[in-house]
Amino acid sequence: MKYRMVISYDGTPYVGWQIQPQGESIQGILERTLERILQKPIRVIGAGRTDAGVHALGQVAHFVSEEVHDCKTLQFRLNCLLPKEIRIMLLEHAEPDFHAMHSARSKIYHYHLWLEPIEDPFLLRYRHKVHSSLELTAMHEAAQALIGTHDFTTFANCGSNAKEGQRTLQRIDFVPQAGGMRLEFEGNGFLYKMVRNLVGMLLEVGRGKRSTAEIPRLLAATNRTLAPPPAPALGLFLVEVKY
Amino acid sequence: MKYRMVISYDGTPYVGWQIQPQGESIQGILERTLERILQKPIRVIGAGRTDAGVHALGQVAHFVSEEVHDCKTLQFRLNCLLPKEIRIMLLEHAEPDFHAMHSARSKIYHYHLWLEPIEDPFLLRYRHKVHSSLELTAMHEAAQALIGTHDFTTFANCGSNAKEGQRTLQRIDFVPQAGGMRLEFEGNGFLYKMVRNLVGMLLEVGRGKRSTAEIPRLLAATNRTLAPPPAPALGLFLVEVKY
Repeated sequence: MKYRMVISYDGTPYVGWQIQPQGESIQGILERTLERILQKPIRVIGAGRTDAGVHALGQVAHFVSEEVHDCKTLQFRLNCLLPKEIRIMLLEHAEPDFHAMHSARSKIYHYHLWLEPIEDPFLLRYRHKVHSSLELTAMHEAAQALIGTHDFTTFANCGSNAKEGQRTLQRIDFVPQAGGMRLEFEGNGFLYKMVRNLVGMLLEVGRGKRSTAEIPRLLAATNRTLAPPPAPALGLFLVEVKY
Repeated sequence: MKYRMVISYDGTPYVGWQIQPQGESIQGILERTLERILQKPIRVIGAGRTDAGVHALGQVAHFVSEEVHDCKTLQFRLNCLLPKEIRIMLLEHAEPDFHAMHSARSKIYHYHLWLEPIEDPFLLRYRHKVHSSLELTAMHEAAQALIGTHDFTTFANCGSNAKEGQRTLQRIDFVPQAGGMRLEFEGNGFLYKMVRNLVGMLLEVGRGKRSTAEIPRLLAATNRTLAPPPAPALGLFLVEVKY
């Protein structure tokens, strides 16, 4: 029997989604907690990795257990045992061929920028504060040059499991919100740290240090060392995985 | 020269507003930071105490310094040196007779209840999760019995500096919001832990364990031991002080 979960978590205290030799991961805690409830080892497969400090509103994962469990009961027991920073928002039976990673059609990430001079003490762990003023028109232009189907290797950190770097970025929307703005990314897949690297590039364009004109050359070079550093993890949320 | 500040803080890591023999207080950090900038001891007077774990959006405080400082510069330097959980939202010159505590006409507190079965991982430190279902109509009735001018000693913990317990509670509003509800309290003054004790009472009424009919008797008794325990600190925000 296959089970599908939608998971929300505050990534601040964790080493990220994926099990690591050192430190606590979301995947590791989920597997240990399911093993404790179901009394056998369970492998949990996520739709995608989130880095240390990255948050999720709608991470998706699946696991297999031979027995048929009542989904509401299992969800309730998981939420009782898990740290409160990790919540199972949904748990349901899935089709046998469902695969959290391989069946995903697209993913939506939001990156939250804080643009006011004084921080909000209640959002410190969820907003990237930008100290310089930003040229929004230039950033919009750069975003237009990034969307579409490209080899995004220049904007991927080493450590990606991906064999090739071609991905389709469907949209980058700029949405004003209290204290600043969020950048909404939707694409059919994202390379390792790709969203944070794209935000890093857009911020450099906003500061006037990079230009939209460079983007085709940067993409064509497929060379990570040419791109600016990634934006910090804390502003990034995995919002939704579409199937 | 007298200075007035409006301060926002996440109370989670602090022992509360007031300086305590042990642990870090908001008042203590503010005094130390002002002393560091102004190179002399400064006493900071707040509009009111907030307990350990209680938050503020608009705490007000004043201090006196003989020299005339540029307010924008002083605010900027304070925000550079203070922990980011404490932010000076406003700093301005005040009239000589202004007193943060004694000049206050009324205060507004909000208490945030989380009423859904699954917590929001991003609001864990700012919402009190209520596990039982609540009779809202009964709570509204009880709130009506509490507003007005009463001796609120029954709903004050020991440790209050107040000599007598008469206060006027102007309103208790129930405002639905994502995930639950907030209770808005406005009054000319609040005794020690009074808002949390009133919320504790309202929750017991909502659970059917106490009734509105008891309230006049409870108030008349001026006896703390007759009231239910206070609601937890984490749901409470000092929102505004009016002068």
